[in-house]
Amino acid sequence: MDTTLKISKIKDGTVIDHVPSGKGIRVLSILGIDENIENTVSVGMHVPSRKSDFKDVIKIENRFLDRNEIDMIALAAPNATISIIRNYEISEKFNVEFPEKLIGVVKCKNQNCITNTREPVKTEFDIVSKHPLIIRCSYCQRTMNEKDIFS
Amino acid sequence: MDTTLKISKIKDGTVIDHVPSGKGIRVLSILGIDENIENTVSVGMHVPSRKSDFKDVIKIENRFLDRNEIDMIALAAPNATISIIRNYEISEKFNVEFPEKLIGVVKCKNQNCITNTREPVKTEFDIVSKHPLIIRCSYCQRTMNEKDIFS
Repeated sequence: MDTTLKISKIKDGTVIDHVPSGKGIRVLSILGIDENIENTVSVGMHVPSRKSDFKDVIKIENRFLDRNEIDMIALAAPNATISIIRNYEISEKFNVEFPEKLIGVVKCKNQNCITNTREPVKTEFDIVSKHPLIIRCSYCQRTMNEKDIFS
Repeated sequence: MDTTLKISKIKDGTVIDHVPSGKGIRVLSILGIDENIENTVSVGMHVPSRKSDFKDVIKIENRFLDRNEIDMIALAAPNATISIIRNYEISEKFNVEFPEKLIGVVKCKNQNCITNTREPVKTEFDIVSKHPLIIRCSYCQRTMNEKDIFS
């Protein structure tokens, strides 16, 4: 009997692997996967891993990620790999890259920041530190930590 | 090739099936499954179902639920079934039952309620309505809706 925790292949979609154990829920949140879910998603949490002790894995059917989504995943899961599946085969596989700048993906927590006014300005942050995660707004210089970013 | 979204058998633990599509994340939250996860968990979300159109399924290795946890799951997923797995076999399977009263499982949102003081009083709620979910504190009569209960 196959006793491994295996989640079967998907026909088309995206596999996000090597997410730190327990961070899978945050990745779901980044991708807006909530009660209004429309794609079939399978999540393995705290799954034994060869690379590290335990990991999370997420498979999303019929969904492909955009640049901003991948940048946000990189913040939560810097060692994640993304596989794009087409017709049951891996058509592309890559590691997420920790972005140098975050453009238009995180909202500044400073309500008075120009990016929170009606000006047509995209948010822009520099990465101050990866561990712990700290970013700084290029406009108002407000820094934000991991909790600020994902809340 | 097996193309179904299948999550393999677990040796020991609990399977929560027939959770409404998208409510799986809430069930994880009820069970305190977060970044500090210590059990391997697999979640199928928006999975095609025979009984209803789509459902969520959660499998938790090496964990068995207590009465309060099952009562809370019943609130979020009134049609859920719980299977207790021991040595790869279903040792027990039952439907959750919508509780008549909730005792000691939900915190009253009225800060002045006697259950929020230092008195040794367990919270107690009556179910006012299932759809939409509304409960009423037996002490202060404050009503709470689904959002209040799970926030």
